[in-house]
Amino acid sequence: MIGTVLVSFKMAEESNLCSASLSIDMTGGALRPGHSHWPSNGCGFLPPLLSLGFLNKMLPFEVSKKLVNSVPGCADDALAGLVACNPAIQLLQGHRVALRSDLENVRGRVALLSGGGSGHEPAHAGYIGKGMLTGVVAGAVFTSPAVGSILAAIRAVTQAGSAGTLLIVKNYTGDRLNFGLALEQARAEGADVQMVVIGDDSAFTTLKKAGRRGLCGTVLIHKVAGALAEAGASLDEIVSRVTAAARAMDSPGCKQPAWIWFPPEGKGYVPHSIPCYVSGLSSCLEQGTLGVSLSPCSVPGSQPTFQLAPDELELGLGIHGEAGVRRMKVASADEIVEIMLNHMTNPSNASHVPLDSGVSVVLVVNNLGGLSCLELGVVAGSAVHCLESRGVRIARALVGSFMTALEMAGVSLTLLLVDDKLLRLIDAETTAVAWPNLAKASVTGRSRELAAPKGGSESEEPASGTAPSCQHTRLVLERVCDVLLGMQEKLNELDRAAGDGDCGNTHARAAIAIQEWLNARPPPAQPSQLLSVLARLLLEKMGGSSGVLYGLFLTAAARPLQNCSNLPAWADAMDAGIEAMQRYGGAAPGDRTMLDSLCAAAGELHALRAPGADLFQVLAKAVQSAEAAAEATKNMEAGAGRASYISSAKLLQPDPGAVAVSAVLRALLEGLQSQSA
Amino acid sequence: MIGTVLVSFKMAEESNLCSASLSIDMTGGALRPGHSHWPSNGCGFLPPLLSLGFLNKMLPFEVSKKLVNSVPGCADDALAGLVACNPAIQLLQGHRVALRSDLENVRGRVALLSGGGSGHEPAHAGYIGKGMLTGVVAGAVFTSPAVGSILAAIRAVTQAGSAGTLLIVKNYTGDRLNFGLALEQARAEGADVQMVVIGDDSAFTTLKKAGRRGLCGTVLIHKVAGALAEAGASLDEIVSRVTAAARAMDSPGCKQPAWIWFPPEGKGYVPHSIPCYVSGLSSCLEQGTLGVSLSPCSVPGSQPTFQLAPDELELGLGIHGEAGVRRMKVASADEIVEIMLNHMTNPSNASHVPLDSGVSVVLVVNNLGGLSCLELGVVAGSAVHCLESRGVRIARALVGSFMTALEMAGVSLTLLLVDDKLLRLIDAETTAVAWPNLAKASVTGRSRELAAPKGGSESEEPASGTAPSCQHTRLVLERVCDVLLGMQEKLNELDRAAGDGDCGNTHARAAIAIQEWLNARPPPAQPSQLLSVLARLLLEKMGGSSGVLYGLFLTAAARPLQNCSNLPAWADAMDAGIEAMQRYGGAAPGDRTMLDSLCAAAGELHALRAPGADLFQVLAKAVQSAEAAAEATKNMEAGAGRASYISSAKLLQPDPGAVAVSAVLRALLEGLQSQSA
Repeated sequence: MIGTVLVSFKMAEESNLCSASLSIDMTGGALRPGHSHWPSNGCGFLPPLLSLGFLNKMLPFEVSKKLVNSVPGCADDALAGLVACNPAIQLLQGHRVALRSDLENVRGRVALLSGGGSGHEPAHAGYIGKGMLTGVVAGAVFTSPAVGSILAAIRAVTQAGSAGTLLIVKNYTGDRLNFGLALEQARAEGADVQMVVIGDDSAFTTLKKAGRRGLCGTVLIHKVAGALAEAGASLDEIVSRVTAAARAMDSPGCKQPAWIWFPPEGKGYVPHSIPCYVSGLSSCLEQGTLGVSLSPCSVPGSQPTFQLAPDELELGLGIHGEAGVRRMKVASADEIVEIMLNHMTNPSNASHVPLDSGVSVVLVVNNLGGLSCLELGVVAGSAVHCLESRGVRIARALVGSFMTALEMAGVSLTLLLVDDKLLRLIDAETTAVAWPNLAKASVTGRSRELAAPKGGSESEEPASGTAPSCQHTRLVLERVCDVLLGMQEKLNELDRAAGDGDCGNTHARAAIAIQEWLNARPPPAQPSQLLSVLARLLLEKMGGSSGVLYGLFLTAAARPLQNCSNLPAWADAMDAGIEAMQRYGGAAPGDRTMLDSLCAAAGELHALRAPGADLFQVLAKAVQSAEAAAEATKNMEAGAGRASYISSAKLLQPDPGAVAVSAVLRALLEGLQSQSA
Repeated sequence: MIGTVLVSFKMAEESNLCSASLSIDMTGGALRPGHSHWPSNGCGFLPPLLSLGFLNKMLPFEVSKKLVNSVPGCADDALAGLVACNPAIQLLQGHRVALRSDLENVRGRVALLSGGGSGHEPAHAGYIGKGMLTGVVAGAVFTSPAVGSILAAIRAVTQAGSAGTLLIVKNYTGDRLNFGLALEQARAEGADVQMVVIGDDSAFTTLKKAGRRGLCGTVLIHKVAGALAEAGASLDEIVSRVTAAARAMDSPGCKQPAWIWFPPEGKGYVPHSIPCYVSGLSSCLEQGTLGVSLSPCSVPGSQPTFQLAPDELELGLGIHGEAGVRRMKVASADEIVEIMLNHMTNPSNASHVPLDSGVSVVLVVNNLGGLSCLELGVVAGSAVHCLESRGVRIARALVGSFMTALEMAGVSLTLLLVDDKLLRLIDAETTAVAWPNLAKASVTGRSRELAAPKGGSESEEPASGTAPSCQHTRLVLERVCDVLLGMQEKLNELDRAAGDGDCGNTHARAAIAIQEWLNARPPPAQPSQLLSVLARLLLEKMGGSSGVLYGLFLTAAARPLQNCSNLPAWADAMDAGIEAMQRYGGAAPGDRTMLDSLCAAAGELHALRAPGADLFQVLAKAVQSAEAAAEATKNMEAGAGRASYISSAKLLQPDPGAVAVSAVLRALLEGLQSQSA
């Protein structure tokens, strides 16, 4: 097998689209560069069954990994996959065309067709449904669809009885030519077809002959036109609504507006100098989109089309992997959004969105593909904040993946100026799967925060005790603290063998916190309150998972003592604490944790439930059991905790948590004994 | 400013979660490693105002670029951003908690709270809404939420009058402990709270003490529980529905089921050995999730947690950047999906989904963050195909970003076994913004293809002419072909200076195609049919954008000749062709294209409309004008086409397209003249 690898660069005319395409000639024969055929993405020459595994192996450092079946088949497979998962859409046999499954419902209504190259998913098939598109035509990745497929789609909706067809096309030369040719052919067959070309790009500050590129704003046009078509508007009405047609030809506000309209001959304005921009004076028609990215993207089987340094980002890019208009150093999301909005709304920018204070907009925060949704949320927040600080009213905000550029780690912002009428079209129902479940309420002008509820017992400091028992409690606790501080280094050493060596420090932090708290006020007299306060103290000050586990133990143990603190209630408290620790922590006795000591002690404490039980006798046995259990952990395999990642052969010492618990229990026993003495 | 950089690794206990956290100590003081506090992502120690610009500059090759404002603030910013964009949700003051804005509608219904670490967006805030969650609590990136915030959320919904609260928690130790502790605290305050812990991971084939991890399947539990709560089900009913509770305790089918249930004390089954798996025998309760990824992800401010070779992928990963259970070579999407489904459904896998032929499932194809939506569609198609080939009935398929792991370029598949009753809950209405607009129809068992419509004129071959005029046409066309073939090299040479040097080849291809066609059959007699056939021939065989442009010209030119082919009609045909070329191609006269010759000729041809016009006289003037115009292009700046990317100083030759057009016109003239002679 002979493999010849070459990289060819193709520039789509006038559209600033530059996509690298990598061709592999498997035959060793004549080279067939990607640009010699049109339209072609240069990948059509790969043997159809060429597996990605082979490709990745041959070119480990040049071509990005992709989860596809074959490079030439990936656009087909992606469309077929979306159709397979969505019973509301179907494929047109022999074409890369998806149509509503309920095509019969188009009868008597205007059909809307859109499409373009693949690689922009969920555009365009995701927008098929009642209230949006009737169908879409997809090309290869980043390549215009075939004229024959566009024509087939027009015929299918025409034969279904549609009241005319509108083609909604993004402004790229290839798309304009291919959709335009299909339109001419369909008209020659007698079909009633019109076309609007969307150019919402706000990147280029000077007038471009090629016009503004079609970007994410196209999705909003799908929505507006779709709502009109569903409501039964005529083809002319829909076109005039999305273009605001002739009256706006000499708008001084926007030099390079976002629509081109291709009316049938003899109707409306027929342009003789091209490109024909039929702009709108009405605010509802102004829109703009600007993208920014931290990375390029790469067409399956190809290298990325540009490179960015680790501290750079690219501003004003398109959706075909082409580089943008400006390269910048990475800055904060707030700063980048500010730069983007300034660029988009600057009146000296020929393709700006006129954004005066007081206007209402629909905002789209569009993931270009590979940005994390966390970052998308951060950028969305920055955009809302920045727009509102300029007095702009955000009527609706869409956040998600709407018009992507493969795996590009970037985001685009789209602003569409809206009035109430246009907003009703945005809000109209649709079954299109990629249209978000949007709340029909204004984003701006509502409270975004609810006051936190007042706390329960936590905010009320329990009454400190004054009874002599409080003094006992204090002395017992002080003994426990002294013991823990005295064994800090020993516990750390035990922990170094199995964990991260901070077990002693963690317990020492707890001891110091309790000492400080005891110095500040006498402890509460009520045992349940005492345990609850200690729980909060350890949660707050002890840290580590030990803090949470002790907190859980004490919180749960406090409850059986709420109404009664006799000896059986203390046995219940111990059980309740252990149960809570087990149920949430996931460890069990035998797992080489503090539970081993606790459970051993708890078993002995059950004797407290017998009438006339002797506290000290029972407690002494409990401490002995706990100490024996702690010692026994040295023979155990760790079943939970960080030590479970370490081979049991290396665990020759007892578990420090179990040792600490038995030491605490002994300190309690000795403290109580010394008080009663 | 002193910067100390270190990388610390933190392992969350028992959950196989290993996240690298990078701390920067800006003070030069004592080092505070991330793991010494809990919960903490190790990033909490970065100065809050540390800009990402600085971070990216300091560590250009270690830390990925992120679009955030600050590392420590990114979870707050992301949640605030989503709240800012969604008027249906609000923040709870002072907490990383989002709640339904219409909290009053929760009165008398069970409140559902979920949450966990950030970095999984749109989980969990995207699932807040009528019919899904009441609220969520978010932690720092990949870190459990604070106990105090969970408690505050429980209090808020309790004070709003909810009929009890269910916590839906993913099975991670940190989440279990923190939600568990908040639950205990809330119960101590008298709140009616229960908790279910979701573990849907199917990666680990042997029983794990820590249980199955909670992954994307959790979203389906949000949906099921949300639909029940909205319908007024009680807390016990909801819990028993999502866990199928006690009756299933000894299910032999699944050794490690997907739910843990934390009922209130004294009610139902209270586990004494932990973890407590309350499994379901009923098929509706079985679910499993398995992920695969081409890349790791990285927590903001940190390095990726693992590395993959350019030809490797990772199987069975979690959603915290932790590595998976198996590393594989990249293969085709079909092969990878097959491996995933085999792994998930293999009965020897302790956490498998029992997938017998004939069962119905809900399939979720979840983007783990950075996979292109194109690849997601390909994988979705593979999954549908693979499942259906096993006789599995796919009731619903969700494709999108539901539970992400930052920017991980991977995908997870979730299978939930469903019956009609469960499906009604999946289909129930919700206002949650991240729940997709799902068709309520079965994915399996419907036709996915529509037969393509019969063509229009294209399929009917026009009647070949037999009249003497046909022979004339044939001879004229042959002369045109000869001329084009004769100037192939000249045109290529002109093109080499400005384009890709293939203009002559492109025109030669056209000429050969026409010759072959003429040899096969006589041309049609009707001029309109002749132009239409030539249009299709050039579109199919000529290639390049020239093919489309000639095709457009001829298609449009054919129409004025449909009913009439006198001299004025030919003038109209020329105008119509030029207009179509301009309107779709975007070039105008003066742009150094073939339009320069065409328009010059068309201007002269207008004389054909005058009564008694002399064809040869007019045509001769038209050819002269076209030739002059072609020559004049050498002084023009390219305004369109590939040449527009080249400095005009380098364009010293005429445009090859314009030259070709004037040569074609001269050949037509001479051909007609020789026929009439």
